Amino acid sequence: MQNQQQTILGIDPGTNIMGYGIICAKDTTISLVKMDILKINAKKNQLEKLIETFDFVSHLIATYQPDSMAIETQFLGKNIQSMLKLGRAQGVAIAAALHKNIPVFEYAPTKIKAAVTGRNNSTKEQVAAMLQYVFQIESIPTFDATDALAIAYCHYLQNANIPIVQKHKTKKNSWKHFVEENKNRIIK
Amino acid sequence: MQNQQQTILGIDPGTNIMGYGIICAKDTTISLVKMDILKINAKKNQLEKLIETFDFVSHLIATYQPDSMAIETQFLGKNIQSMLKLGRAQGVAIAAALHKNIPVFEYAPTKIKAAVTGRNNSTKEQVAAMLQYVFQIESIPTFDATDALAIAYCHYLQNANIPIVQKHKTKKNSWKHFVEENKNRIIK
Repeated sequence: MQNQQQTILGIDPGTNIMGYGIICAKDTTISLVKMDILKINAKKNQLEKLIETFDFVSHLIATYQPDSMAIETQFLGKNIQSMLKLGRAQGVAIAAALHKNIPVFEYAPTKIKAAVTGRNNSTKEQVAAMLQYVFQIESIPTFDATDALAIAYCHYLQNANIPIVQKHKTKKNSWKHFVEENKNRIIK
Repeated sequence: MQNQQQTILGIDPGTNIMGYGIICAKDTTISLVKMDILKINAKKNQLEKLIETFDFVSHLIATYQPDSMAIETQFLGKNIQSMLKLGRAQGVAIAAALHKNIPVFEYAPTKIKAAVTGRNNSTKEQVAAMLQYVFQIESIPTFDATDALAIAYCHYLQNANIPIVQKHKTKKNSWKHFVEENKNRIIK
């Protein structure tokens, strides 16, 4: 892979469904690599679901070798127990990336909407429609998948000014290097 | 390690401090191996803290080779964002165990208190005092550490009837085998 080419994995983990979107950016051109959902077996208990999420994200990373992973940050309006479960699902997904030394970035929902559509209060339909246009997608599968794609696309659009974190230093002349050099811009 | 000997890691992950307690059980005898806290650098951003948690739990697992790990389940009375952060911290800790194929068990706070002291509304002081007696601890460090030790001890006391999950099958004649054989007792 050349330095100018970057693969971004966007994920939207949940307790029953995890959306994911993978895009490849080369210079100023971006393309959709894969977008889909993982349906997690509802009969499993919570910790078994976490295993499935961890294994699946590990599988995505091994298969698509992303240079970075992006997730959505806090959600409002859910109850305490749902939030703990969601946090755990995000946590195991983040750990799968950290374990492979993939830097993880997070964006607030309003930031993602604004990045994709220009408005921070867009509907899911509007976000999906914009992604459909940008990536020339024939038909939209589910919003769980487009939400994840939106996260990846947001990260692509913001890569010049919203870094976060990575585990170890990497070589120069790469996007990762840029992240390393711009820790002062980290989202707190 | 003989089949009858089991090492249990109890952890109480948080965003700033993670307590942990490791006990070794052999037949009907239990002993304290280690109990302490990890103070997470407050200057780090959230994802860097998650990396520290993941790395530290991985280190504990590599060092003490526990046969199982136990955590506390839902907490009430915290706000949504704290809960997401706590969930993420638990998630990366769980992932560190899952990655090494260590089965993870979870217990509600009231269950832990009841197991340790016989009363589900005990104070932290009462829990700590009981642990001090059981494990013959000269002085109690902090409640963050004793809370984690209580989780491990609860798991020891409950091992005959509260299993949860593990990733792959293991050989028979072990506690892990018991877990595998008792999936119907899993906490939902």
